[in-house]
Amino acid sequence: MPICITDIARPKPETVAKYQGAEVATVHESQGRKGLLASYMRPIYRPARIAGPAVTCEVAPGDNWMIHVAVEQCQPGDVLVVSPTSPCIDGYFGDLLATSLKARGVLGLIIDGGVRDIATLTDMEFPVWSKAIFAQGAVKETVGNVNVPVMCAGAYIRPGDIIVADDDGVVVVKQEEADAVDEQVKKRIANEEHKRAILESGTLGLDLYKMRERLAEKGLRYVKQGEED
Amino acid sequence: MPICITDIARPKPETVAKYQGAEVATVHESQGRKGLLASYMRPIYRPARIAGPAVTCEVAPGDNWMIHVAVEQCQPGDVLVVSPTSPCIDGYFGDLLATSLKARGVLGLIIDGGVRDIATLTDMEFPVWSKAIFAQGAVKETVGNVNVPVMCAGAYIRPGDIIVADDDGVVVVKQEEADAVDEQVKKRIANEEHKRAILESGTLGLDLYKMRERLAEKGLRYVKQGEED
Amino acid sequence: MPICITDIARPKPETVAKYQGAEVATVHESQGRKGLLASYMRPIYRPARIAGPAVTCEVAPGDNWMIHVAVEQCQPGDVLVVSPTSPCIDGYFGDLLATSLKARGVLGLIIDGGVRDIATLTDMEFPVWSKAIFAQGAVKETVGNVNVPVMCAGAYIRPGDIIVADDDGVVVVKQEEADAVDEQVKKRIANEEHKRAILESGTLGLDLYKMRERLAEKGLRYVKQGEED
Amino acid sequence: MPICITDIARPKPETVAKYQGAEVATVHESQGRKGLLASYMRPIYRPARIAGPAVTCEVAPGDNWMIHVAVEQCQPGDVLVVSPTSPCIDGYFGDLLATSLKARGVLGLIIDGGVRDIATLTDMEFPVWSKAIFAQGAVKETVGNVNVPVMCAGAYIRPGDIIVADDDGVVVVKQEEADAVDEQVKKRIANEEHKRAILESGTLGLDLYKMRERLAEKGLRYVKQGEED
Amino acid sequence: MPICITDIARPKPETVAKYQGAEVATVHESQGRKGLLASYMRPIYRPARIAGPAVTCEVAPGDNWMIHVAVEQCQPGDVLVVSPTSPCIDGYFGDLLATSLKARGVLGLIIDGGVRDIATLTDMEFPVWSKAIFAQGAVKETVGNVNVPVMCAGAYIRPGDIIVADDDGVVVVKQEEADAVDEQVKKRIANEEHKRAILESGTLGLDLYKMRERLAEKGLRYVKQGEED
Amino acid sequence: MPICITDIARPKPETVAKYQGAEVATVHESQGRKGLLASYMRPIYRPARIAGPAVTCEVAPGDNWMIHVAVEQCQPGDVLVVSPTSPCIDGYFGDLLATSLKARGVLGLIIDGGVRDIATLTDMEFPVWSKAIFAQGAVKETVGNVNVPVMCAGAYIRPGDIIVADDDGVVVVKQEEADAVDEQVKKRIANEEHKRAILESGTLGLDLYKMRERLAEKGLRYVKQGEED
Repeated sequence: MPICITDIARPKPETVAKYQGAEVATVHESQGRKGLLASYMRPIYRPARIAGPAVTCEVAPGDNWMIHVAVEQCQPGDVLVVSPTSPCIDGYFGDLLATSLKARGVLGLIIDGGVRDIATLTDMEFPVWSKAIFAQGAVKETVGNVNVPVMCAGAYIRPGDIIVADDDGVVVVKQEEADAVDEQVKKRIANEEHKRAILESGTLGLDLYKMRERLAEKGLRYVKQGEED
Repeated sequence: MPICITDIARPKPETVAKYQGAEVATVHESQGRKGLLASYMRPIYRPARIAGPAVTCEVAPGDNWMIHVAVEQCQPGDVLVVSPTSPCIDGYFGDLLATSLKARGVLGLIIDGGVRDIATLTDMEFPVWSKAIFAQGAVKETVGNVNVPVMCAGAYIRPGDIIVADDDGVVVVKQEEADAVDEQVKKRIANEEHKRAILESGTLGLDLYKMRERLAEKGLRYVKQGEED
Repeated sequence: MPICITDIARPKPETVAKYQGAEVATVHESQGRKGLLASYMRPIYRPARIAGPAVTCEVAPGDNWMIHVAVEQCQPGDVLVVSPTSPCIDGYFGDLLATSLKARGVLGLIIDGGVRDIATLTDMEFPVWSKAIFAQGAVKETVGNVNVPVMCAGAYIRPGDIIVADDDGVVVVKQEEADAVDEQVKKRIANEEHKRAILESGTLGLDLYKMRERLAEKGLRYVKQGEED
Repeated sequence: MPICITDIARPKPETVAKYQGAEVATVHESQGRKGLLASYMRPIYRPARIAGPAVTCEVAPGDNWMIHVAVEQCQPGDVLVVSPTSPCIDGYFGDLLATSLKARGVLGLIIDGGVRDIATLTDMEFPVWSKAIFAQGAVKETVGNVNVPVMCAGAYIRPGDIIVADDDGVVVVKQEEADAVDEQVKKRIANEEHKRAILESGTLGLDLYKMRERLAEKGLRYVKQGEED
Repeated sequence: MPICITDIARPKPETVAKYQGAEVATVHESQGRKGLLASYMRPIYRPARIAGPAVTCEVAPGDNWMIHVAVEQCQPGDVLVVSPTSPCIDGYFGDLLATSLKARGVLGLIIDGGVRDIATLTDMEFPVWSKAIFAQGAVKETVGNVNVPVMCAGAYIRPGDIIVADDDGVVVVKQEEADAVDEQVKKRIANEEHKRAILESGTLGLDLYKMRERLAEKGLRYVKQGEED
Repeated sequence: MPICITDIARPKPETVAKYQGAEVATVHESQGRKGLLASYMRPIYRPARIAGPAVTCEVAPGDNWMIHVAVEQCQPGDVLVVSPTSPCIDGYFGDLLATSLKARGVLGLIIDGGVRDIATLTDMEFPVWSKAIFAQGAVKETVGNVNVPVMCAGAYIRPGDIIVADDDGVVVVKQEEADAVDEQVKKRIANEEHKRAILESGTLGLDLYKMRERLAEKGLRYVKQGEED
């Protein structure tokens, strides 16, 4: 019954390329505020930033066997996404698996579980976003699925979807929406740079965004201390 | 009904100046062990240390509109304190708001919620103490109060109270107690430096603090292994 | 009734020496996956790595008096292990106690509670693994036991057991098993280095560990996308 | 941009009927151990058990406006599923909304957030599975989507999927798999009743499931106390 | 330095009387959505409902001595509010203290810590709202303050403020606002009863609250499934 | 390497009998405040109370195979104690296993993990104290140890130690200390009954325990409101 899908469709390289260097917050905003993984997903070192297509891997709690299967399915530029079928923070992943992934050109790991050997992973500059850091080892007894859609840290991720991760966390972009989102990302970045320059000069957001009238309509009153009533 | 108080009383500059460089633990001790915010309030980078008067800002869950209102009320040397009216870890604050605050000379942000763009905030050297790091965006729909007393991470903070924050966390000093506490802080620092030198030389705390007699009175017995009874 | 045991048996120096530089994950594996402390035990700075015999110290919640008693029992190379008798994250330990411990040659602190003054501790290069960072001070009212077996972050630790701690967390090795475990550690390290070289060359774990046949037996099927059924 | 889909496809009544009285654990097993919501989803009173098609509702944090929109889309026998777009435990739902839902024949509520008025809801016998109980009120400022797929407590739920909830928690069955799963449920129940009778008579699971040989192969040894080695 | 204030001002009996039977959610709404304690404050049994003036008591972590002092300050109809000076879930309170409080006519206990003997407390019908249930005992070593303002589960409570607690949690009403809030409570209850009758008849909230127009203005579109774009 | 110890030493029946009906808090106090399991261990229904010798069972995360092995080792009056080798809240235990245990006269289950089928377990009156309620199923792939010492919810439990559990939680009494503790329990109960009668009559704990003098020595001052300084 468990399957490993071998030839997943990935986005075009030029689509993926557009997300290199993109920020999680910007991507999240650009796609209508969806796709964020839970805030407990934290990078093992900072700064860290990656973007690439997901290879997905389901693991049983405390069992990292399927990660070995998933490694073979990875191509240069991919991001491996690992999710236990029930909550578990064991250390599914360490420096040996990272060595294998690095040898294949994988950019990093997203795991809704635990990771270990983080000193070595940091030295190797192999970034991992995880729920926990825990030295607890895993077994290799139970088979699961590779490259099927998974739930990971509260997000729904399909193989080939684009993962963007940075110091703020992790976001997923649906493969079929990647080009449309990218347009939004570019607009947003340009817009933010423009605003940043204005705000740096001391102009208030209240004025830049023309908020004063709407605030007054909603009933906000400016008063002096002691004159609240 | 929502109000923004515009002319809050701040402590005298010389009073605030005395807290520059003070440690949270020392200030907390010096005022009789009160005023600490919850331990989940962590700085986004380390080391970080600030001290200044609070401008307070209530926000609805998931809504950062009032932060824009609060920015205008900030003066150089202030610390902005943001607290949701109910628990929420959304990313209320990012680099654009930080740009505005920095342009006004604000020293940092204390937020009982989430923050995003932390890579940029770190590059900007704008320190934030927050409950969470989360890229989730906020809306601008609900007005609230600025410069009223707020509950923030379990502490009661009024505008103009002095906020001291460092790698250990955050403490608030009541404006009217700031001079008295400062005296205690200075005594305490002198005292600790004196003790540190003694302890460095190898003298035991047991002797320095003359604890041996009281320990014996309380029944502590020194025994050899295997002679417990 | 409370006791302080003064002459605990420590492992031989050459036994302890073998654990210097050992990784927590490797030691944990080498002793059959036991002895790990809970994953919430995190170092206050990274990288950090120590190994030494435990001096154990029970403290009442919010009371650090017995740490002063424990300091006297420490010898160069020891690791102090502090555990509250009920859960408490107060800041039991700060820079003055660290000064005392450092003066005695103690390598670091493991505490199932809170720590403060972490900026100074970091400057001092005195590593601490703790449950929390919290400036809340402790009292000195209640006596407890020193050098009796303690439960610490879910692990059972006796005085003289070897503590190994690094960026991954903390593990305890029973004193009487220390030599046997060390043999396993050495074998494991050699084995891992060998594997690392092979994996770096691009050989898959599937082949290195000869997993393909067993995966097939367990029913794993390789299919193309769209041909799942 | 926000939409309310008005004529969702529901499973046939006879399909839904088969799930009445089914247990969450059994349904979860019968569909290959998927579809469970997080374990923090707890019923406000016990015992409680419902099964019906999902009407889904996205809400902004702290904003329950869209629940009013969703109510209109509910039909007798439906289960309302509410999920905030970012984590929030405010009391989105109380006795007035329950009155409306009950008037429409809705069986219960699944909410990845907070609920209030639980004493009244209990008296009304309107069951709710929620992440929290919290009296904090919600606003009505932000529109969202009704009857689009949602992430709820870590599960992916589409309108018309069947929700089964009992004292153990909540599980979702995909609409298109509902008949196949139901076959498994029936088999499983029959099988369990058979086993229960055997186990009640004192026969061991070791024998009933013929585990002894496989345990021995895996290396399990039976020894007397004191003869462990 | 620690003090016990002996003659706190309480609200008039007729003011307190108005809150008997009031619901936490209603009171919270009536005072502008403030005063709620954290959602982790749960009753040890259900249903439970009390209202009365607060006697406040600060305790050191793991130390229940001051509760004995506070008992003497309680009068019939009071509610005892206990808050540790730092987070602690020890069992500060059990059936003997409850016996004393009951003998004095105290209505119940609110404690931002642990409670034990809950089977007996349930039999005695002495309600407790607590952060935890834990049998861990407390010591009697440290004095603290009675009847000073306290922070309890994130709320600021002064002696004489009115505590209202029910199955939803706990809310505090400032003594000086108690009459004004009560007016709001009465209006709100009348209003809710009116609405309930209308909603029971099947009228939708969308119509009762005239929401349709504003939803349309905010851009909500009603579409058929499959016609989303 | 994994073993099942078959002939564990249990306490004498008359020793175990003395703990029937004992309260967890009283037993915990009587043995010098040790042996409590973490406060997250909660009974699935209330009231519930058991006492009996432990049969211990280690399970891999998400794997309940060894529980079947442990069942065979249970005798009438035993309490089964199950602990995962790393944290996991999967539903290791349900009604079929309970049927087996009940057929063997086992009194209840203590599990530092999840349990399911709680509606049926409640109907069966088979009490369980667990960390979580979760329908997630377990596999049967990994063997572990039965009747070796285990860490369970932060306590160290050996086979044959006496487990006492009630609505407050769970406590373990070392087999060799069981008679001595029992003496203390009896004294304590007599003492508490005596005190209860006195406190019921309205005598204050301050007087009963003669606390007034010591409180004054520690500096407690009684003052009127407004005369704090």
